[in-house]
Amino acid sequence: MSATDGAGGRRPTLALVGATGAVGTVMLDILTERPYQWGEIRLVASARSAGRTLRVRGEDVVVRALAPEVFDGVDVAMFDVPDAVSAEWGPVAAARGAVVVDNSGAFRMDPAVPLVVPEVNAADARVRPKGIIANPNCTTLTMMAALGALHRRWGLTAIVAASYQAASGAGQVGIDRLQDELAAVAGDRSLGSVAGDVRKALSGLPGNSPFPAPLALNVVPWAGSDKGDGWSSEELKVRNESRKILGIPDLKVSATCVRVPVVTTHSVAVHATFAGPVTVAEARAELAAQPSVVLLDDAAAGIFPTPVDAVGTDPTYVGRLRQSLDFPDTLELFVVGDNLRKGAALNTAEIAELVGAELAGR
Amino acid sequence: MSATDGAGGRRPTLALVGATGAVGTVMLDILTERPYQWGEIRLVASARSAGRTLRVRGEDVVVRALAPEVFDGVDVAMFDVPDAVSAEWGPVAAARGAVVVDNSGAFRMDPAVPLVVPEVNAADARVRPKGIIANPNCTTLTMMAALGALHRRWGLTAIVAASYQAASGAGQVGIDRLQDELAAVAGDRSLGSVAGDVRKALSGLPGNSPFPAPLALNVVPWAGSDKGDGWSSEELKVRNESRKILGIPDLKVSATCVRVPVVTTHSVAVHATFAGPVTVAEARAELAAQPSVVLLDDAAAGIFPTPVDAVGTDPTYVGRLRQSLDFPDTLELFVVGDNLRKGAALNTAEIAELVGAELAGR
Repeated sequence: MSATDGAGGRRPTLALVGATGAVGTVMLDILTERPYQWGEIRLVASARSAGRTLRVRGEDVVVRALAPEVFDGVDVAMFDVPDAVSAEWGPVAAARGAVVVDNSGAFRMDPAVPLVVPEVNAADARVRPKGIIANPNCTTLTMMAALGALHRRWGLTAIVAASYQAASGAGQVGIDRLQDELAAVAGDRSLGSVAGDVRKALSGLPGNSPFPAPLALNVVPWAGSDKGDGWSSEELKVRNESRKILGIPDLKVSATCVRVPVVTTHSVAVHATFAGPVTVAEARAELAAQPSVVLLDDAAAGIFPTPVDAVGTDPTYVGRLRQSLDFPDTLELFVVGDNLRKGAALNTAEIAELVGAELAGR
Repeated sequence: MSATDGAGGRRPTLALVGATGAVGTVMLDILTERPYQWGEIRLVASARSAGRTLRVRGEDVVVRALAPEVFDGVDVAMFDVPDAVSAEWGPVAAARGAVVVDNSGAFRMDPAVPLVVPEVNAADARVRPKGIIANPNCTTLTMMAALGALHRRWGLTAIVAASYQAASGAGQVGIDRLQDELAAVAGDRSLGSVAGDVRKALSGLPGNSPFPAPLALNVVPWAGSDKGDGWSSEELKVRNESRKILGIPDLKVSATCVRVPVVTTHSVAVHATFAGPVTVAEARAELAAQPSVVLLDDAAAGIFPTPVDAVGTDPTYVGRLRQSLDFPDTLELFVVGDNLRKGAALNTAEIAELVGAELAGR
């Protein structure tokens, strides 16, 4: 693997912190699919995972333990770790000269940290007084490519959103828990039809689920932590991050975030109101022109996006576009995106590539 | 079983048409739980199911084939059959003197047919020029007890709703299909994580799914038939039936109806706007005072309604009540109800009991 780019310049050095997590694992795939962006790639994880060998770009790389020195000589450091780890180690990496691209919630609402979706607000990534750029929450990200495109053209004023969020939004423990629950209910065709049976079927599983209720054969209307007045952290992230990314401080947002028994890929039903009239035909044309959006919108013919078709792919899929019958200047749409790719690792990689290109003078 | 009521009057005769379907099966349970409402109960089904013996109120009853004569002497005939069967046979039963309570979509929007939720508009059931009363669609019904109570007090003006609908909304074939799909994906923990795998895992199943996409490990943003301009029949039912039941012809409604891998019990995320200010505390008190509503609303403590806890029970469960942060006079709520009970059989039985009491002069 050459460490110079096509023009002979040095390719930037990348560190991936959290290489062994659910998002980190997808990031290794993405880095392998886009092999010419980086020179050296350092894989970093907790001391517990250090010493493991992971494969990226066809090479075996030994995972290094998180320590200040691993950031020496690093141009861009991507963090896919819990909030507390990012809060502690992001500034350490930045102090060592790396531009940090952080996928946690630690810095997203910091006014000195840009919150970036490259299709929407790439220019914001250049102004980073703390040397840190934040990657949005996965549920917010599911909507941004589509809503950003519509906003540029028609001026978004309000959204009412209801999510259908996958287990992997809670990380590898979320995936494992859903799979354990599905295994525990498999084969009993009476389950889900009579009160209490599903809880009973799961009673043999450990009590440490990341979800506050059974997820198999169920939906769970709560994601994240309590933020007061009945709101979950996930719902307020959708509101506050959408406002920041789109640059609409007074955007009206109401979100209801619900976990569903899907392994990976979030969906969101969006009721979006604009500053003026917009037709479905115009919106379709605008969305179809976006490189990162795929329109799947002929429901009568069975064409609409679903998680099992989107998982493992990069685009934001949009379908079920229709004019609200009773609300002026309002469209309904259903957006679907892989929460580990565009919702997390891919967008992080795209931000990092923006920075890499900037550093390389490209 | 005595055919007289406590006052010595004749108990009315009931016919249940569609006794062998998914809703009919639940209806047998409900009739057994409420044994003193009716004198004779006749069970009726298609010629294919005639002659079978079903158990109701502890008695074995032989199913009779649908024919005009089965309605002779019947006071109330409940229909849980497809639209076309109701359209043909409902008027036949009415012509024979039965008051028809129909759970299909055949008559719901007929101006000469009342559409009734007893908690909301019981009086409408008394004016039935065709001798037919309609039972609402299950998704609409999931919301009505709660929204009806809030509307009486604060005047509902608009709702934006996103549903999480169970497989049994598509009848027994829906339940069977979801169970078949779950069996087909069971044991392969890689499924749902990589594009295409779920479809491949289901490729051995028959091609006659009632759902237009895989439902296991997925969500399907389409329910019902195409009604033009991108809208599904289910979504327009939510709009039109809500307006009729609540008596608000100009109620603004936008619904997105999505099928989820839950066997039975629908959920709906509702954004509800009123004619004036309403606080969460006031709404909670109003909802808690409704006999058919159960408030489960302390999400921070893990208390919110979910399908696996609601299935097999009668109430409408309401949780996640919160004040919209950016929309005036608006509440967010999450409502959950068994779509085969309150969403279908129970509400039908309750309407039939209203009529039975009226006929008995009670």
